[in-house]
Amino acid sequence: MVQCSLIRSGAVVDEFSLIETYFKDIPPLRPDTRLGVGDDCAIVRTGDNNELVITTDILVEGVHFLAATDPGDIGYKAAAVNLSDIASMGAIPAWATLALSLPHPDHKWLKAFSAGFINLLSTYGVDLVGGDTVKGPNVITVQMMGKIESGTALSRSGAHQGESVMVTGSLGDAALGLKQLKGELSVNSPAADYLLSRLNRPTPRVEEGVLLRDLATACIDISDGLISDLGHIVKASGVGATLELDQIPCSPPVTNYQKATGDFAPSISGGDDYELCVVVPEDAQQEAVDRLLEVGTQLTKVGVITDGERVEVVDPLGQSKTDPSKGYNHFE
Amino acid sequence: MVQCSLIRSGAVVDEFSLIETYFKDIPPLRPDTRLGVGDDCAIVRTGDNNELVITTDILVEGVHFLAATDPGDIGYKAAAVNLSDIASMGAIPAWATLALSLPHPDHKWLKAFSAGFINLLSTYGVDLVGGDTVKGPNVITVQMMGKIESGTALSRSGAHQGESVMVTGSLGDAALGLKQLKGELSVNSPAADYLLSRLNRPTPRVEEGVLLRDLATACIDISDGLISDLGHIVKASGVGATLELDQIPCSPPVTNYQKATGDFAPSISGGDDYELCVVVPEDAQQEAVDRLLEVGTQLTKVGVITDGERVEVVDPLGQSKTDPSKGYNHFE
Repeated sequence: MVQCSLIRSGAVVDEFSLIETYFKDIPPLRPDTRLGVGDDCAIVRTGDNNELVITTDILVEGVHFLAATDPGDIGYKAAAVNLSDIASMGAIPAWATLALSLPHPDHKWLKAFSAGFINLLSTYGVDLVGGDTVKGPNVITVQMMGKIESGTALSRSGAHQGESVMVTGSLGDAALGLKQLKGELSVNSPAADYLLSRLNRPTPRVEEGVLLRDLATACIDISDGLISDLGHIVKASGVGATLELDQIPCSPPVTNYQKATGDFAPSISGGDDYELCVVVPEDAQQEAVDRLLEVGTQLTKVGVITDGERVEVVDPLGQSKTDPSKGYNHFE
Repeated sequence: MVQCSLIRSGAVVDEFSLIETYFKDIPPLRPDTRLGVGDDCAIVRTGDNNELVITTDILVEGVHFLAATDPGDIGYKAAAVNLSDIASMGAIPAWATLALSLPHPDHKWLKAFSAGFINLLSTYGVDLVGGDTVKGPNVITVQMMGKIESGTALSRSGAHQGESVMVTGSLGDAALGLKQLKGELSVNSPAADYLLSRLNRPTPRVEEGVLLRDLATACIDISDGLISDLGHIVKASGVGATLELDQIPCSPPVTNYQKATGDFAPSISGGDDYELCVVVPEDAQQEAVDRLLEVGTQLTKVGVITDGERVEVVDPLGQSKTDPSKGYNHFE
């Protein structure tokens, strides 16, 4: 239930309002529905000690990818954005379904798409168990389920004042990759290749989510940008947060771009990186860093949870910065 | 994983070939994947004695509904076609996710759509647990999960020679309703209202599926037409079937139309009725009829399973009739 956008805009919005307006406040009918609409995944009870986390994501041509986008990349990304949702709950991805609306049965496209899709599912041990195909506009919907021990799933709602806000990997690569794709930026190879691969083939942080499950108090995957996604944690947890601009981990191309232009939007409000933003109590911070180091993933403290009501960004001098963007609205 | 079409064609096709071509023969990676791509639902093991059945269906504007179709009917049908898939496995529907691609946030449309959708889910005790919304062409994807005791789900593959082919309710109403909608047929009210309600608001046979679970050897819901859908049972079970044209249960408007025109396509190859086609051993036939009578649903024997390889239709004189259609291909 994240959004992944190869085509983006920087407008201030709330993309979740539609589904929330019509469906969030309906009380569950079933006692085994643990968490409904409003988090990265739903949680349902399936056995005495088993729960399932469930997510769904749509990719639309012209919104999330271009007609010219490599179909292998589209297939990869359709799997990756759902895997990332499962990761943000700390669950083990297990099964997926695929609903494909296609203008015509283009077998070359389908072969490349399905290879990109299935290969990534296989990497994470996920079985595609069902699907539907129809003639129509190019719209891809994936639904994915993950398994988890009862009561152990991470959500957006457990953050407490004083805890550390941390992120995996580095931020801003996908946003800069998109600028490059749109011709707004010229970057030399191999940096160019790196940025494009981060945009088109992001690594879902599945192993990291599982490793952080018993340490973190809240988690979300960064699909709409750090400020926006941390904003969901803040809202769901009833807290605030302060982000330190100079602590946000960036790759050399993003660091260079941001220094040269003074435009910090890629790292703080650029989407599509699919890193995890986790909230960790201070005494668990080192353990969290150490665990992810063992799988080769950097975990960086970027801020703290406050008693405020919003996400504030401060620069190295402690000056508050205005949010340049809060994400991307699919209905702007 | 059925197709529901307000706009239909009568061409001979196999709508399942695309998803099967690319995804059916991939062996499952997980030991708890019991049944993958190729039936009405997938089956996965979620606990010691619990399984989940999973289905997904796409509805596309211009393919499955018209821009002018009442959004409440679209919402109802989006729920109904998935409930019908769960019913065909004999499972209890439990949870759904909704992925909506919409050209713009039309709140009047959304309000009516969500009422139609949620009201039907509520009728069957199903919780909507997740969703995604995006700006794009009008494409609706629903995914639904149902619960069932391990090893008890019905599938397409258990039919044996000599067993009875039976159907719930009556067939051909939706096809005639569509003819009426397209202006190809003029029917007086109240028959007209009846046919349209059968097209737009079909009753998923959930209770019936559960009641038949321990009696039937194979089951499918009739979304593409009796010949086509029985054809899936026949193929999956490695058998053949003979249908008796004059035994197929029809409502008075369909009976009148078929007698007057000699066109039996509505009842034998018309889709969208969402009745169940079940295969029942002869000694369980009366029990099956009696059980459904208790919930007010007619169950009628329409043919037998043979040692052939295809579905044959015979008229009252025992003459074989050529299949006028085998369903609807979304990529013709």
